[in-house]
Amino acid sequence: MVEELPKFHEIENPVRTFMSKRVFGVDSETSIQEAAEKMVEFNISSLVVVKNDEIIGLITNDDLKKRVVAKGLDSTTEVEKIMTKELITVDIDTSVKEALEIMAGKNIKHIPVKEDGEIVGMLTFSDLIDFEKQKLETHISRE
Amino acid sequence: MVEELPKFHEIENPVRTFMSKRVFGVDSETSIQEAAEKMVEFNISSLVVVKNDEIIGLITNDDLKKRVVAKGLDSTTEVEKIMTKELITVDIDTSVKEALEIMAGKNIKHIPVKEDGEIVGMLTFSDLIDFEKQKLETHISRE
Repeated sequence: MVEELPKFHEIENPVRTFMSKRVFGVDSETSIQEAAEKMVEFNISSLVVVKNDEIIGLITNDDLKKRVVAKGLDSTTEVEKIMTKELITVDIDTSVKEALEIMAGKNIKHIPVKEDGEIVGMLTFSDLIDFEKQKLETHISRE
Repeated sequence: MVEELPKFHEIENPVRTFMSKRVFGVDSETSIQEAAEKMVEFNISSLVVVKNDEIIGLITNDDLKKRVVAKGLDSTTEVEKIMTKELITVDIDTSVKEALEIMAGKNIKHIPVKEDGEIVGMLTFSDLIDFEKQKLETHISRE
């Protein structure tokens, strides 16, 4: 098996190569239901939460499952009540490897990406899967 | 970039190598909230739905987001009301490549695995990521 390991030169690359440049946000007073609708509409798994032009938190698929459905919480509740407040971010020049280590260590699947102190992107496990999937598809199509 | 593509010999391997052998189920009359609690407790992203000892459907993270939270549905509703009824399955000897093509074509992230007509496992995108992550970690730890 060891001989079959692919060479992940790519994990030394900066997260700017893999992140989504589209970061979607909702106002902190938005209802959970409306936020979920937006996630479905844009086929995304996280939203940043904005208050007075500042990003104050993040909501993800897992938050909806754990803090809303599993708790029987009313979906008219404001997103501010269920968002993750502790924003863990990485700089745009951080390597994918380091970002993955942070995600694994903190057990998170989404990490906002900063450039010059501003959030300019979102790195998700899905981005990394899509990247892997693209490679798989390339492999499939080249056969 | 093309030169850097890893060789995915593994995608010719059967899904039995990558699937989760633990398949969790809930009774069709279980409430959505209870099902979500179970998913959180066991850290899983799907559950099969059982009625009269037969698997009649599947519920996933995406179903909770799309059909419950985004619709403002009461979480005391029975899972049978929101499950995916059309069960797409693969045989345990199907290649990962073929399973991936089915998942991509049907836009699904979970696929129950059958052996001799019985569901014996679940293949998820997460299994494939974990596999990729393990390889990344192996790569990291060997540096």
